[in-house]
Amino acid sequence: MTTWNFSSGPAILPRPVVEKAAAAILDFKGSGIGVLECSHRSKLYEPVVASAEARLRKLMGIPEAYAVLFLQGGASTQFAQVPQNLLASGDVADYTDTGTWASKAIKEAKHFGKINVIASTKEADGTYRSVPRNLQVTEGAKYLHITSNNTIFGTQVHEFPDVGIPLVSDMSSDICSRVIDVEKFGVIYAGAQKNLGPSGVTVVIVRKDLLGKTDRAIPTMADYRTHIDAGSMFNTPPAFGIFVLDLVLEWLEGQGGIPGIQKINDAKAAKLYAEIDRNPLFQGTVAVEDRSRMNVCFVPLNKEHEDPFKKLCLSRGMVDFTGHRSVGGFRASIYNAMPEAGIDAMIEAMRDFEKSNG
Amino acid sequence: MTTWNFSSGPAILPRPVVEKAAAAILDFKGSGIGVLECSHRSKLYEPVVASAEARLRKLMGIPEAYAVLFLQGGASTQFAQVPQNLLASGDVADYTDTGTWASKAIKEAKHFGKINVIASTKEADGTYRSVPRNLQVTEGAKYLHITSNNTIFGTQVHEFPDVGIPLVSDMSSDICSRVIDVEKFGVIYAGAQKNLGPSGVTVVIVRKDLLGKTDRAIPTMADYRTHIDAGSMFNTPPAFGIFVLDLVLEWLEGQGGIPGIQKINDAKAAKLYAEIDRNPLFQGTVAVEDRSRMNVCFVPLNKEHEDPFKKLCLSRGMVDFTGHRSVGGFRASIYNAMPEAGIDAMIEAMRDFEKSNG
Repeated sequence: MTTWNFSSGPAILPRPVVEKAAAAILDFKGSGIGVLECSHRSKLYEPVVASAEARLRKLMGIPEAYAVLFLQGGASTQFAQVPQNLLASGDVADYTDTGTWASKAIKEAKHFGKINVIASTKEADGTYRSVPRNLQVTEGAKYLHITSNNTIFGTQVHEFPDVGIPLVSDMSSDICSRVIDVEKFGVIYAGAQKNLGPSGVTVVIVRKDLLGKTDRAIPTMADYRTHIDAGSMFNTPPAFGIFVLDLVLEWLEGQGGIPGIQKINDAKAAKLYAEIDRNPLFQGTVAVEDRSRMNVCFVPLNKEHEDPFKKLCLSRGMVDFTGHRSVGGFRASIYNAMPEAGIDAMIEAMRDFEKSNG
Repeated sequence: MTTWNFSSGPAILPRPVVEKAAAAILDFKGSGIGVLECSHRSKLYEPVVASAEARLRKLMGIPEAYAVLFLQGGASTQFAQVPQNLLASGDVADYTDTGTWASKAIKEAKHFGKINVIASTKEADGTYRSVPRNLQVTEGAKYLHITSNNTIFGTQVHEFPDVGIPLVSDMSSDICSRVIDVEKFGVIYAGAQKNLGPSGVTVVIVRKDLLGKTDRAIPTMADYRTHIDAGSMFNTPPAFGIFVLDLVLEWLEGQGGIPGIQKINDAKAAKLYAEIDRNPLFQGTVAVEDRSRMNVCFVPLNKEHEDPFKKLCLSRGMVDFTGHRSVGGFRASIYNAMPEAGIDAMIEAMRDFEKSNG
């Protein structure tokens, strides 16, 4: 039986990537040693980092004015690192509050500057079901921080605003899933473990002219300039994670790049949402216009259907499709690597469940 | 031909670990999904972190008063994180300067307290060939920081001093290679990529009563208490790295634990140093009493022998045995996972080289 992995992250990887990664662990490029075991400064490994950077630049259209870094610590580390690098004492930055991760980003930024939450879509019950529109930034704010896709609640910013200041975006759960204009952004950061690779690597894309303007002393590892100067090799990088990320990007090239995968992602999401809207036993949990194409959240109308539907899905090889503990219901995370057949399996389960319970 | 991997890190892993890791990438515990692709909060993965912690506690004899954390960012991140958590503004800490990594630790600590370098073994030529003895700590110092093994120069602290204050030690290159008394230490930290696993995981062992005494606001991810409270799962951990680390510890149990591997390590190092001392064409680079049992550094007496000896070793399947660019010559890193046969191969090359060049 095929297993369909709807995990929100760490998440499904393209099968050819998984197979190449396993083979390289046993023997990297015929060297007799595995990819986990070779020096990051060896001739064997060093080209991997350059390759990953070059592929990402080409796929996303990242201009030369931006650095591409492969760091550690996840987006949670970036929540502090971004303001630490971009804000001087007394500087102001604007944030939108659209979910759990956005609110964590706000909390950390307050260590380093004056943070204005210019919009929040938090509802009375503590959940979030939409993203804000018509944003007005604060006079003098250095940047506007936006979580591009809210993994937990299943909302997504489909159009990035033009606000006259750089956007900073946590794109952990939708980077490389759709075409974006990098030049709108001062910083883009993303934990790799959804669309780019395994956990333990964080991609940071930063416009270099925004750096060096803060008056604070930044410890070496927290300073983006350290990693820019060293090409992400100031200290031992998460070498295997970058290697897998490079394989994922190679696979993405074969999907027609980001325009190609976007088309596939749009079709996958449209198909699943259409079934949620059609099927009288289920409903979506967020505003239709803000629905995420990565994390599809839905609930049964009848709460008592939750367990039997869960059992049906499990019996058909689907795993990790339950909603985050703060939301409940179901969440199908359908990142780049989830094939259309996985969506079809979920839809078929919904239809069969309707037949026996409708 | 067998390949002998003398890399200083990322370094050789036990072959059974490598094979299990490759298999788990294809299918983790018969689940149908790979270990890179499962949620860190899944029933499938979560036991891995608990297992790794339990094994490390038992192997090293870590008392309950200490937390065991699996973090990201390498020892270089700990250089700042240790003083950030342990020192209040105005507090003093003592450091020894015994090499490149020690001096980096000193530099970062200065962001967070008054740092006294109470001993340095730096020589006029910028290298280090010994470790200091008879240390006198500063009145009121909160801790004494020691690099237990200096990877680049090949020196090692064989006896940790009793100085009446907690020791803090970067043990990146010799953790779990020999028996130590954890209770002498306030903090032990180590990048995994030498004796514990792949790069991208950092082990931190911290005495819990030392925390919460600083007056500074610590960003969430930099605060050890965050990770203690969340069992190293505050955010997505470097899941695969911890999985491999757990396999390495399982392997170590099979070697007779740390007393068992120490005996093997001592024998391996003694054998190689004996050949360096016997062979008239080579000499060791550091004080005999401070020689590292992990990184064996030596040079040919005749500089013109460097290239031909290198070629001979390469022709026999040895890789990554050249000294760090700041030292030159040769460095055989012989961590836990290097079998005695690898040392024998190096010794045989030295003897054969003597025969044809002596």
